[in-house]
Amino acid sequence: MATQRITDFLATRRPSGPCLVVDLEVVRENFIGFRRALPGSAIYYAVKANPAPEILRLLASLGSSFDCASVAEIEMAMNAGATPDRISYGNTIKKERDIASAHALGVSLFAVDCVEEVEKVARAAPAARVFCRVLTDGAGAEWPLSRKFGCVPAMAIDVLETAHRLGLQATGVSFHVGSQQTDTEAWDSALADAANVFNTLAERGIVLTLVNMGGGFPTRYLKDVPTAEAYGQSIFAALSRHFGNRLPETIIEPGRGMVGDAGVIKAEVVLVSRKSATDENRWVYLDIGKFGGLAETMDEAIRYPIVTARDADRKEPCVLAGPTCDSADVMYEKVPYPLPITLTVGDEVLIEGTGAYTTTYASVAFNGFEPLRAYVI
Amino acid sequence: MATQRITDFLATRRPSGPCLVVDLEVVRENFIGFRRALPGSAIYYAVKANPAPEILRLLASLGSSFDCASVAEIEMAMNAGATPDRISYGNTIKKERDIASAHALGVSLFAVDCVEEVEKVARAAPAARVFCRVLTDGAGAEWPLSRKFGCVPAMAIDVLETAHRLGLQATGVSFHVGSQQTDTEAWDSALADAANVFNTLAERGIVLTLVNMGGGFPTRYLKDVPTAEAYGQSIFAALSRHFGNRLPETIIEPGRGMVGDAGVIKAEVVLVSRKSATDENRWVYLDIGKFGGLAETMDEAIRYPIVTARDADRKEPCVLAGPTCDSADVMYEKVPYPLPITLTVGDEVLIEGTGAYTTTYASVAFNGFEPLRAYVI
Repeated sequence: MATQRITDFLATRRPSGPCLVVDLEVVRENFIGFRRALPGSAIYYAVKANPAPEILRLLASLGSSFDCASVAEIEMAMNAGATPDRISYGNTIKKERDIASAHALGVSLFAVDCVEEVEKVARAAPAARVFCRVLTDGAGAEWPLSRKFGCVPAMAIDVLETAHRLGLQATGVSFHVGSQQTDTEAWDSALADAANVFNTLAERGIVLTLVNMGGGFPTRYLKDVPTAEAYGQSIFAALSRHFGNRLPETIIEPGRGMVGDAGVIKAEVVLVSRKSATDENRWVYLDIGKFGGLAETMDEAIRYPIVTARDADRKEPCVLAGPTCDSADVMYEKVPYPLPITLTVGDEVLIEGTGAYTTTYASVAFNGFEPLRAYVI
Repeated sequence: MATQRITDFLATRRPSGPCLVVDLEVVRENFIGFRRALPGSAIYYAVKANPAPEILRLLASLGSSFDCASVAEIEMAMNAGATPDRISYGNTIKKERDIASAHALGVSLFAVDCVEEVEKVARAAPAARVFCRVLTDGAGAEWPLSRKFGCVPAMAIDVLETAHRLGLQATGVSFHVGSQQTDTEAWDSALADAANVFNTLAERGIVLTLVNMGGGFPTRYLKDVPTAEAYGQSIFAALSRHFGNRLPETIIEPGRGMVGDAGVIKAEVVLVSRKSATDENRWVYLDIGKFGGLAETMDEAIRYPIVTARDADRKEPCVLAGPTCDSADVMYEKVPYPLPITLTVGDEVLIEGTGAYTTTYASVAFNGFEPLRAYVI
């Protein structure tokens, strides 16, 4: 997945130290792919996945809208050219003063998942549009999203009624089927729940218009994932099934699916060793680890493809670890990673599919190591 | 554990947003406590625990030496007034060019745990002193250190012989009994291993002189921990048991034990909600979480004391989560945290024992949130 442009950049520029290189052409193709797959849906890029200004500017110019998690992300999207009507403040956990700042910037679409948050929005952003996030079961996702965001559909009805009563525009429902979702049918039961909320509120005179179908679109790591087209067909079928021919406005919020496969991290082998003469696995230490950007290796959740110049040689399982003095900074140990037996100190490795959730996750300066550098080309 | 000075600072300065406040007087007392408890040992402060310049300057002025994990940390220690003879490059995973940089700065004490690393040191820092880290079982530690660092004692003999053969000074042995180690006897078996390495190498004409007994000294979180005196007595007894009256030079490397209880994080309740009308636990969301500095809540490893102005009120178990749109940003859920039922949006909370491993762990800008601010007073 290192494109020719990335390969050429690394060969020409030879950056020292670990770094991420993102190919904007891949981001462009991904955006076009989503638009083609779901032509009826507005695309709100999840800025948190990778807020590099070059990415935001490209997407703004292509007509993307933006899902922002904080006021800082709203400002980044606006600096990249997005008008406030193309911004959703999608974090259900907001300080009232941050809601007020967003409102002052012109943002008028807010996520909520409880009455307490509705009350804050009503005070700080009068007459704004709100959508309520509902819980889904996350089945089929590599990283089900726990219960941190959303409420049960029955409570969403109360939340949206409260919004309406407090002078807000009760606009719709959102959900998230779970990160790296590889089951294209996963949207079905959440859309059924959303349709129920629409119907119940319609009976009470509140007409919802928007379904925010969230993210969850995967990046290809070691296993194949369905195409954007496959998701599009399946989601459109589920929408028709549950909403008939009165289709709501819809939003999708791809983050990982937009930029994950556009980036490659270049890293270096710092050490290869064994712990004893009879140790079964070698330990391979890189100059990047869990605290330098690869936080998603937590619990060995994401298994990135790793490419070396020695991949034609025989491979054997290795424990893969980062460069810090933190014993938790081990990426793959429960399931060791097959790497060439000839791999040695100083070798370069490419870690693919790392365009999302790497640069901003990097720690400020843990162990004195600087955060992950990024080049967007 | 919020000292009067910290309480006064927060009351007077009223900093906005989450922040860490560190009381240097506590750091001073901790340093004096370690020196008194282990008067025969040199104290090498583990810079990675908290590299704030004010802390490094204080410790340098008190006569501390420094355990550094990177060239950047070496430079910080030297900027704080430490001479290179008071610095140990304690990371066993070093790029050869970083070893050369440290050597150029005058550093001459290096950690190793395999022949490959010895070869790098021999090339980049000729005639330097090296100590070999051996694995321990970590029993009794809250966070046993996995097998990332160190080799078995039998291999340490080869490593140190190789160092000797390559013109380095084979100086000694190091180990680490595991982070937040509450068993004062934990040093005993590691010191037995160290004595065996000393004896075996002495038979081969190599005289070791140094035992680096590492860190592991705990901070008091919710449970009481033994005093520095108790550690001192137990460690001195173990040293005598295994080395008789030919005691080696010793080093200790407190990090958490030096600064953990000197710091308090001030945070704010952003939201309190339930997921359904019948939800057993409330969810309490703070403006700081796993990616804003509280990385050590990973797997609910460290349970920090949390103080509020409403602690006289009845408490009930809550799920405690951070402010980001990341579903992994939940701190306590498996074992919910008892908090006052009256706790509400906008309330301030103090998270105690947070002087170590917080500021540098914070992510650069995840979700657009800025890293943890720190005030050292």
